[in-house]
Amino acid sequence: MPNPTNQAPADPAPRSMRSASVRTANLSQVLSALHFHGPLTRSDLCAYTGLTRSSVAVQVSELTDAGLVFEQAPQSDGRPGRPSPLVTFSTDIAALAIEVEVDSIAAAVFRLGGESLAERRLARTRSQVRVEDAIADIGTLARDVLADAGSPTIIGTGVGVVGLVEEAENTVTMAPNLGWDNVPLGQLLANEIKDCGEIRVGNEANLSARAESTRGAGRDANDMIYLSGEVGVGGGVISNGRPLTGRSGFAGEIGHLTVNPDGRNCGCGSIGCWETEIGIRALLERAGLNPDDGADAADTLWDHADRGEEQARDALATTGRWLGIGVSTLINIFNPDVIVLGGMYRTGYAHLIDAVRAELETRVLPPLRGAAIVPSILGDSAILIGAAEMAFEHALADPIGTMSSIRT
Amino acid sequence: MPNPTNQAPADPAPRSMRSASVRTANLSQVLSALHFHGPLTRSDLCAYTGLTRSSVAVQVSELTDAGLVFEQAPQSDGRPGRPSPLVTFSTDIAALAIEVEVDSIAAAVFRLGGESLAERRLARTRSQVRVEDAIADIGTLARDVLADAGSPTIIGTGVGVVGLVEEAENTVTMAPNLGWDNVPLGQLLANEIKDCGEIRVGNEANLSARAESTRGAGRDANDMIYLSGEVGVGGGVISNGRPLTGRSGFAGEIGHLTVNPDGRNCGCGSIGCWETEIGIRALLERAGLNPDDGADAADTLWDHADRGEEQARDALATTGRWLGIGVSTLINIFNPDVIVLGGMYRTGYAHLIDAVRAELETRVLPPLRGAAIVPSILGDSAILIGAAEMAFEHALADPIGTMSSIRT
Repeated sequence: MPNPTNQAPADPAPRSMRSASVRTANLSQVLSALHFHGPLTRSDLCAYTGLTRSSVAVQVSELTDAGLVFEQAPQSDGRPGRPSPLVTFSTDIAALAIEVEVDSIAAAVFRLGGESLAERRLARTRSQVRVEDAIADIGTLARDVLADAGSPTIIGTGVGVVGLVEEAENTVTMAPNLGWDNVPLGQLLANEIKDCGEIRVGNEANLSARAESTRGAGRDANDMIYLSGEVGVGGGVISNGRPLTGRSGFAGEIGHLTVNPDGRNCGCGSIGCWETEIGIRALLERAGLNPDDGADAADTLWDHADRGEEQARDALATTGRWLGIGVSTLINIFNPDVIVLGGMYRTGYAHLIDAVRAELETRVLPPLRGAAIVPSILGDSAILIGAAEMAFEHALADPIGTMSSIRT
Repeated sequence: MPNPTNQAPADPAPRSMRSASVRTANLSQVLSALHFHGPLTRSDLCAYTGLTRSSVAVQVSELTDAGLVFEQAPQSDGRPGRPSPLVTFSTDIAALAIEVEVDSIAAAVFRLGGESLAERRLARTRSQVRVEDAIADIGTLARDVLADAGSPTIIGTGVGVVGLVEEAENTVTMAPNLGWDNVPLGQLLANEIKDCGEIRVGNEANLSARAESTRGAGRDANDMIYLSGEVGVGGGVISNGRPLTGRSGFAGEIGHLTVNPDGRNCGCGSIGCWETEIGIRALLERAGLNPDDGADAADTLWDHADRGEEQARDALATTGRWLGIGVSTLINIFNPDVIVLGGMYRTGYAHLIDAVRAELETRVLPPLRGAAIVPSILGDSAILIGAAEMAFEHALADPIGTMSSIRT
């Protein structure tokens, strides 16, 4: 059974536990087990939650009354004996997920349990975008994708944005690639998207980290670092099963660790940030390509390297070395189980990993060696999946309370 | 009231809360409030714990029966009306704290509530030490200091060691300054120290971080980084009120983040680790002093700088710049409330802080600025205080269970 910490719905249970909160905690456990592991028998639910059989019966009954789950007569599985009924989630309970990226805006609907029901993506020019235009585009995409999905009951909305986000305020504090400063996105969207539960906004890399941690390459890890990059480099840290947030929710800006103090100027105003050495611009420049050509040019570069072109291989070796230097720093700081590589480090994984590993051999303290360095499993879907998980979080923590609030 | 997260006794309450664990959680809250805030009236206890008056009465009664607390008739405070009795901890319940440092071994006894009852320190030559000799010295120091303290009931022992520690095993995995590799210190001490409760071993910098977080410069912070240095540079991270541990408990090796990939060789085998630029050797060398002269030479250097000697000032400016480069990285990664400087960064704080701040101005992402950079309050006592807090942890999490186990 995977480590249950990864399925933690929200904050730790408060230390003063009274009967109401015990009840909520038990309901949360049962619904979370179903959400992360799929339909289960009552016996499985006992095993996953540690609750007694009679307690599981009570929770299933309450969740059924709330319209969140139902019990399904199983198909015969061909084995002798009558198979047990499966507790499964209602098919019409879903979350809305929104992604605001450098070159596209997307919306998707995910059922409780994590299945994607519909997804739409709108390409946008790689330039600054007026907030009003983005809001209108998101509204249109959301309405279309909800119709595609058959208009399920939406219990929450999660929005992933390429920028620094103050999660407590649902505000985009700084998004240079969009040209946004202090945009109260959650509040603005509340006027555009109706009947979609509470709207929460998060940083795209943090949401990808959450997705890989719950449903991707980090699902068996308690301590995981997600690293993704193209022009900018972002990341998210899962520490002891929970996202690292810091004082204002800005933690995880690993693209801006200084690796070369007298090196290149960074867009952030500093010098020698990690992203100046491992970002796509430096890679393309080293390979003699136009640094402004973006992700498609990186795909070309992998091809050149496959054909054995020396400049391409040298460029990858240099970028891989810098990648390894920063990854070593992260391992020495965080002692993680796994580092998950997304974005161009996923597509270029095979071309970069040897140079990364060579650097780790000298730079990671011996007792901290052994962290796995793996490519992302969820790839470009990670942001939307993470946004949906953020949207489900309240419902998983307080199933009955959330259902009451969306029905009033 | 300080943020209660800092007083969290141990792990989050398990999600399946039954009546026994609710009772333990409530007892834990009451005892923790007393331990961290000192004697309190029952009304204060309600305020600190969120428990009802009748629940506080039950917990106080159980803790009294277990011999952990008692109610004290207050001295008249000169104000009208009868003052309320104070719930206070028993004076004969204590923890044993041990410190194994580069140049000394120390033992101390701390009462529940944090007051130091006795402390002894044994200087040792700055060289490798045979494990058996260290164990024998610790045993002697422990017996002496327990006698000094009047032989209180010891509910746990915490040991801080200058090295990487696998906390789950109480094993010192790697301590180059002692010449130790994979020493099962907890197990070895169990044969030497009797009747001192459970023995737990931790890394000295992590324990200092814990001490500063609970009783020092970080006591109002949820997210704190502690940095300390001399020859080696170590640190500890408190994230959302809890120590960052990582997969094996080795997290926080911030001395080995790479800041200058083509710089000086580090003792760890890597090149350009932060400690090669901000450690005492580099500082003394820059100042034209003997790099092997240690902490006393640093004190001399502060004097030279105070007298305006140019080479001393330049050396401090350069070290301060490198200090700022790494601190900026830590702020961008962790978004902390506060960074606490210990060791020579505490004694040299006034000489270094301007250069640190200048670096932060360009290197920290604007929305992450504002973290406080402060000197350690606890200074050289931090390790022993942190070791005692580690020893108290089990008793605070499960007061009755711990008392039963040490009395059988």
